Amino acid sequence: MSATIIDGKALAQVKLDETYAEAQRLSEAGWAPRLVSISVGDVAAAELYVRNQKKYAEKAGVAFEVRNYPETISLEQLQGVLAGLNADPRVNGIIIQRPLPAHIPVKVLQKAVHPLKDVEGMHPSSIGNIVYNELELGPCTAVAAVEILKSLPLQTEGLNVCVIGHSEIVGKPIAFLMMGLGATVTVCHHMTRQVSVHSRAADAVFVAVGKPGLVHGEMLKPGAALIDIGINRVEGRTVGDADFDSCAEVAGWITPVPGGVGPVTVSTLMNNAVRATRMQMDHYRTTFAAAE
Amino acid sequence: MSATIIDGKALAQVKLDETYAEAQRLSEAGWAPRLVSISVGDVAAAELYVRNQKKYAEKAGVAFEVRNYPETISLEQLQGVLAGLNADPRVNGIIIQRPLPAHIPVKVLQKAVHPLKDVEGMHPSSIGNIVYNELELGPCTAVAAVEILKSLPLQTEGLNVCVIGHSEIVGKPIAFLMMGLGATVTVCHHMTRQVSVHSRAADAVFVAVGKPGLVHGEMLKPGAALIDIGINRVEGRTVGDADFDSCAEVAGWITPVPGGVGPVTVSTLMNNAVRATRMQMDHYRTTFAAAE
Repeated sequence: MSATIIDGKALAQVKLDETYAEAQRLSEAGWAPRLVSISVGDVAAAELYVRNQKKYAEKAGVAFEVRNYPETISLEQLQGVLAGLNADPRVNGIIIQRPLPAHIPVKVLQKAVHPLKDVEGMHPSSIGNIVYNELELGPCTAVAAVEILKSLPLQTEGLNVCVIGHSEIVGKPIAFLMMGLGATVTVCHHMTRQVSVHSRAADAVFVAVGKPGLVHGEMLKPGAALIDIGINRVEGRTVGDADFDSCAEVAGWITPVPGGVGPVTVSTLMNNAVRATRMQMDHYRTTFAAAE
Repeated sequence: MSATIIDGKALAQVKLDETYAEAQRLSEAGWAPRLVSISVGDVAAAELYVRNQKKYAEKAGVAFEVRNYPETISLEQLQGVLAGLNADPRVNGIIIQRPLPAHIPVKVLQKAVHPLKDVEGMHPSSIGNIVYNELELGPCTAVAAVEILKSLPLQTEGLNVCVIGHSEIVGKPIAFLMMGLGATVTVCHHMTRQVSVHSRAADAVFVAVGKPGLVHGEMLKPGAALIDIGINRVEGRTVGDADFDSCAEVAGWITPVPGGVGPVTVSTLMNNAVRATRMQMDHYRTTFAAAE
């Protein structure tokens, strides 16, 4: 095995420490950051994620309130709940846990979150700001994956990057973020003729598809960085989208699953919470400064 | 010469005819589409564009009002003008002509246009919607370039596409639009190590950089489609970013400059105007339906 295994937990801890310091500053200014998690119906499906987020929130000095609504709630009622949270100055960020029942379209809910409280970075205007290279609140997984790459001793300007998977909230934002850093980016997906043609030419490969074993060692250029964003359950174990053993033989750096992108993603969520709180504080002060 | 020259004017006329028919339907419903063009300071710089837009507006059955403000106007005053236009139900679309004086940042003005009146498709939420594959009002040049490609007998699913230039309003949106159509997209720019490595592997090349002669025939795969979005003035002539003669020897299809992407872009602007008008009508009816 030649690859250096990237320690996601250590990177996450650095970010949590920074976030904690900022949360303290905000609290002292009267703006203690506070997240509200919304889940609907079956609690078990999202429970692991929610528990983990709560644990990270504590480490980051962010208050975390869990709200669960019954499966029978209507879309209109949930929109009403969000309107209330948008208007409540004591709430700085809103997380919408998946899965949602079939009658609640997740995109409609995400658009109903005020962009300044969109800590998951999924509102169209948050995504549009990434395209404009103005990162305010970015989608957490994409931001985390790119931060991991930035932690490596690689120059991103001119780097050949292959992104496998073109979802709106992971693959595409990674592509824009890497373009913003000067990389030459190719985005592959299920309709790509030969993924390996593109992946083998790349200095860094991001994979976010949700298929265990999709990326094998022979699909990589020797020494490339492999950032594995997949989270799959196989025979009771959690694995990524890469065949770890064969990839680790070829890659220069590789993220493990679990312990790679995952912890950095949750710490990014907490970092977004404090960013959102500061933006709201600044917005409030700008808006009401004249009245004081 | 082997390439088929793409007739942008003919494609534009088809779109103008469709737009005219929709404008008539909207007018009969009491919603005659109307655009307002805002220019600031030196009129001459934007005059050719404005005159051309006015001519296309007439053909599309869209009212077109030209407003010119003196160079001395402040950003705050212009934002006030836009707030008034946003609120005015007789105005369905706002165009901000470039160039603007140095004290007026174009992005700030674009964000001040209401997303439902953003006929140029430049508001972050318009761009974000493209990422989400929900095209409402797309940036005109990018939409036009992609429509030209779609008019060719090529299957976009799995197509290898190279986009040269990664501006927020042309290169990046073309990349997302093509991804949405199933293409495998590589975006190159000034930091790309070797553009020709990517362009020569592509079935279709879009170039939008603003450098005459940037793309030569030997950078293309034989039979590829070349969509040239550049508009440059060289020795009194208008030319694109491609060296037309050498590219036409190798390409399967090529857009001329002028007469390629340009006319389709202006007809897309008019099409956005009628789309925006219909969205506003629907929005008005939904909002006030209960009161009727």
